[in-house]
Amino acid sequence: MRPRFHVPAVNGAAERVELPADAAEHLVRVLRLGVGDEVDVFDGRGGMWRAAVVQAGRKSAAIRPLGRVQPARELAIQITLVMSVLKGDKMDDVVRDAVMLGVASIHPVISERSETSLAALARSSRIARWERIAVSSAKQCGRAVVPAIHTATPLDWCWTEQTTASRVMCVEPSAAFADVFPIQQVRKAPAVQLIVGPEGGWSVTEVAAAHDSGAMLMSLGTRTLRADAAPMVALTALLTSWGEL
Amino acid sequence: MRPRFHVPAVNGAAERVELPADAAEHLVRVLRLGVGDEVDVFDGRGGMWRAAVVQAGRKSAAIRPLGRVQPARELAIQITLVMSVLKGDKMDDVVRDAVMLGVASIHPVISERSETSLAALARSSRIARWERIAVSSAKQCGRAVVPAIHTATPLDWCWTEQTTASRVMCVEPSAAFADVFPIQQVRKAPAVQLIVGPEGGWSVTEVAAAHDSGAMLMSLGTRTLRADAAPMVALTALLTSWGEL
Repeated sequence: MRPRFHVPAVNGAAERVELPADAAEHLVRVLRLGVGDEVDVFDGRGGMWRAAVVQAGRKSAAIRPLGRVQPARELAIQITLVMSVLKGDKMDDVVRDAVMLGVASIHPVISERSETSLAALARSSRIARWERIAVSSAKQCGRAVVPAIHTATPLDWCWTEQTTASRVMCVEPSAAFADVFPIQQVRKAPAVQLIVGPEGGWSVTEVAAAHDSGAMLMSLGTRTLRADAAPMVALTALLTSWGEL
Repeated sequence: MRPRFHVPAVNGAAERVELPADAAEHLVRVLRLGVGDEVDVFDGRGGMWRAAVVQAGRKSAAIRPLGRVQPARELAIQITLVMSVLKGDKMDDVVRDAVMLGVASIHPVISERSETSLAALARSSRIARWERIAVSSAKQCGRAVVPAIHTATPLDWCWTEQTTASRVMCVEPSAAFADVFPIQQVRKAPAVQLIVGPEGGWSVTEVAAAHDSGAMLMSLGTRTLRADAAPMVALTALLTSWGEL
């Protein structure tokens, strides 16, 4: 397999495309590639090309696209993972796994029981780190699309946003709500927002607000799942149920 | 929720059961519980009881079972995860997640591209750590069964072992084999061995041996999954497809 590089500026008609500094450094210093070697480059928006290295210096490198290659197939369903921010580095794994499973974007939200705040998130470098993880996960799994990491918002934002997407909220097995459906009953739709809670789960108010706004409440079975495993289990189960895995 | 303790020696008719040293220490020093407090205890084989603390000392504690409680439902299918040992601590997550998803046991195997050996594994404390992780994951997800971690063997062992279980081997999307089936075509059976490979995948010889021994080759879709994510995706997808999640 040819090494893959994320080069947002690439287009197939270009004669020469400079690599971003970090990609150039990786190409030259880590992989020790040089002029004439072949790589794959993708633009993050769905295009991927085979390319030849045409320049490789100490701090820069450039390639020439040779022809289109087929990236991993994108899902027919646009899934946005609306994820309550988890503690520590647990979100890193969630981002990595969600990208691998094919989500179109990730929207971090702060809910009542999140153990961080929008202000703390804005001060940290976490969003930038999640963007880097999204690139590297896309690279690893062969996707030419790098899912967007949206700006974090309060969970409430979901209920006021105008969208044609179906909303599906994962609730715990113990949740004492009527209208909780098993995965098999969640219908396929062109666009889906999958909403997953933090370590401490949702408050009753949050579930009620979701329900009132038309979100479908979905149960992930009878076992209690760890918060950082729930998005991957929910995504895999929905994709399997929809014949999209 | 009452704190849960794994007490292999417990039975519902006992008047007094000593806790293992580590459980006693956790009860007394970490949770600061004392005589009269209520806890849940499970035997690891399917029994779980509400119990009262009847003694709590500096280094020991004892409980009296009060009545049975209902643990998380066990799967109707006995699934053994046959897992090629992964690098570093990645197996820790695999064990934790597989227990959470309901496997009956985990069988670590060494395959051609495993980056460790049976001898290195025997010298390490990794199997004992996986056993502790299995207990703690069972505790967290409310299972009263602690899945066994079998002695590690070469992968070949699977093909010679007498078993009535169906064998299913996960193969990569790129695998150039005939007879690779999508998840939806894997039939439910009373007992299943799910066989998952290491970071570098299977060799052609290994896949051929699996196929010749009657194992079904299963594809997990078109995207390349990380080795440590593959068991969780495979388990979730099979359980969803079988209506068992």
